[in-house]
Amino acid sequence: MTTPLINKLCVIGVGLIGGSLARALKNAGAVAHVVGSGRDEANLQRAVELGVIDSYSTDPSKAVVDADMVVLAVPLGAMRTVMQQIKGHITYKAVITDVGSAKDSVINDARSVFGEMPVNFVPGHPIAGTEQSGVEASFSELYDKRRVIVTPHEENDNDAVKKVKAMWAACGAEVVEMNPGHHDQILAATSHLPHMLAYGLVDTLARMDDSQEIFDFAAGGFRDFTRIASSDPNMWHDICLANHAALVPVLEKFSDELRQLADAVRNGDSDFIKETFNRAKQARDKFCNE
Amino acid sequence: MTTPLINKLCVIGVGLIGGSLARALKNAGAVAHVVGSGRDEANLQRAVELGVIDSYSTDPSKAVVDADMVVLAVPLGAMRTVMQQIKGHITYKAVITDVGSAKDSVINDARSVFGEMPVNFVPGHPIAGTEQSGVEASFSELYDKRRVIVTPHEENDNDAVKKVKAMWAACGAEVVEMNPGHHDQILAATSHLPHMLAYGLVDTLARMDDSQEIFDFAAGGFRDFTRIASSDPNMWHDICLANHAALVPVLEKFSDELRQLADAVRNGDSDFIKETFNRAKQARDKFCNE
Repeated sequence: MTTPLINKLCVIGVGLIGGSLARALKNAGAVAHVVGSGRDEANLQRAVELGVIDSYSTDPSKAVVDADMVVLAVPLGAMRTVMQQIKGHITYKAVITDVGSAKDSVINDARSVFGEMPVNFVPGHPIAGTEQSGVEASFSELYDKRRVIVTPHEENDNDAVKKVKAMWAACGAEVVEMNPGHHDQILAATSHLPHMLAYGLVDTLARMDDSQEIFDFAAGGFRDFTRIASSDPNMWHDICLANHAALVPVLEKFSDELRQLADAVRNGDSDFIKETFNRAKQARDKFCNE
Repeated sequence: MTTPLINKLCVIGVGLIGGSLARALKNAGAVAHVVGSGRDEANLQRAVELGVIDSYSTDPSKAVVDADMVVLAVPLGAMRTVMQQIKGHITYKAVITDVGSAKDSVINDARSVFGEMPVNFVPGHPIAGTEQSGVEASFSELYDKRRVIVTPHEENDNDAVKKVKAMWAACGAEVVEMNPGHHDQILAATSHLPHMLAYGLVDTLARMDDSQEIFDFAAGGFRDFTRIASSDPNMWHDICLANHAALVPVLEKFSDELRQLADAVRNGDSDFIKETFNRAKQARDKFCNE
């Protein structure tokens, strides 16, 4: 028998993301024991029944005891509270990481709670998920061949960075390193802005007088386009606020473009519309064929 | 042998929509002969090879001779030209319909070309399609269980309306009737606006300095969200301009909502963001489960 990569994994927040991580590591034989934590005891019991975790405590300060890897898989708005709960209860050898969709806000939370960014806290973000949530939706292949962005800070211990990368690699993920602020800009563009547009569009139509009829005549394209508007609203509220610094500028860029497109439609400016649509199609076809 | 619904069908514009219609009617035994027309002779030859049409002429005025059903399946920007070409060459008993995504513009084109809306011209719009185009992409099941909106005008001959409805029903479609202007409003909301947003978003990102990296980190949600930006840019240019009267107001409604959402993100207005996202998710989950 080889020693597993992680002896005791503590997952705080056993939902789609945390649950899928635990499943993947178990499947890979990369973890000996998984302890879960969270506020909802029924959810944790269900996670034990499903074999996602081996034990649990609703008290994060107890769940982290003796863990050599602690993963914060709670919504961004709950990160600071969880850090406060576990502070002083983690062994000095434990590695900490998180799965938050915005990285500067997690680092700011950690600095504020721990006084400085702990050397063993390596922020991370798996680029994976579905519009489902909860442990019932978790599955071990979620991270297979998906990107995980690890955003180390200057004070990070090198072994801690290596261990977080190895954990995600064991799940089948392709691990890349990125500066936290740059991560936040990239994700604002490709993920956070599209979610705002999808929520905003569906809500705009839902508030129109003939909304029922409008949705009745929505075709497949609309269904795909608005799929992300079925994502967890509270989680996305947290993400948009946590990453507002990167989100607002790209939102303004988009609004400018939309204003120009609207003017072109109003004024019958064929060239502008055709150039814009053609550039978009070329870019989309290119990135989708890569 | 029973007499087929249509003896000689003339499809002007043998692409995804026109080609799929011909295939479906042939499959259903609802047509005896299909003649195609269009500007691209190689495409028409390919359509014959594929068995989509039986014969063709690149001259619409010749293709319509003796046809008892003429379907205009060209982009909206080409409708007027095609009407001018076929004017005076259609038998008085022939029924004419079209598949344009905007209906008032087709009616205006017809009034302008024919002097008045012909009693046998019944505008229609199948709510079906993919982001593909061309006869190679056509398939006989495209309209199966999909909605087709027929938008008769007051002067329409009742038998002509019946025949157009029967044609789409033979393709397996669910046929509904709607006022042309109302059709244009509904489609502006569920189809034309989303296409503008998808094109606008992809173009915004494509024009950013780190666009290659941005697209590298786009996940599945982004792929679904931007699928419609791979649609034919010239076709969508035509649609946006043809339906500008209905598109601009709904675009303004959306822009207002986006401005409010952006302000809420900037000001940390949690309640506004949560209410908006929750309303959207509820509406989206509701219409997708129907």
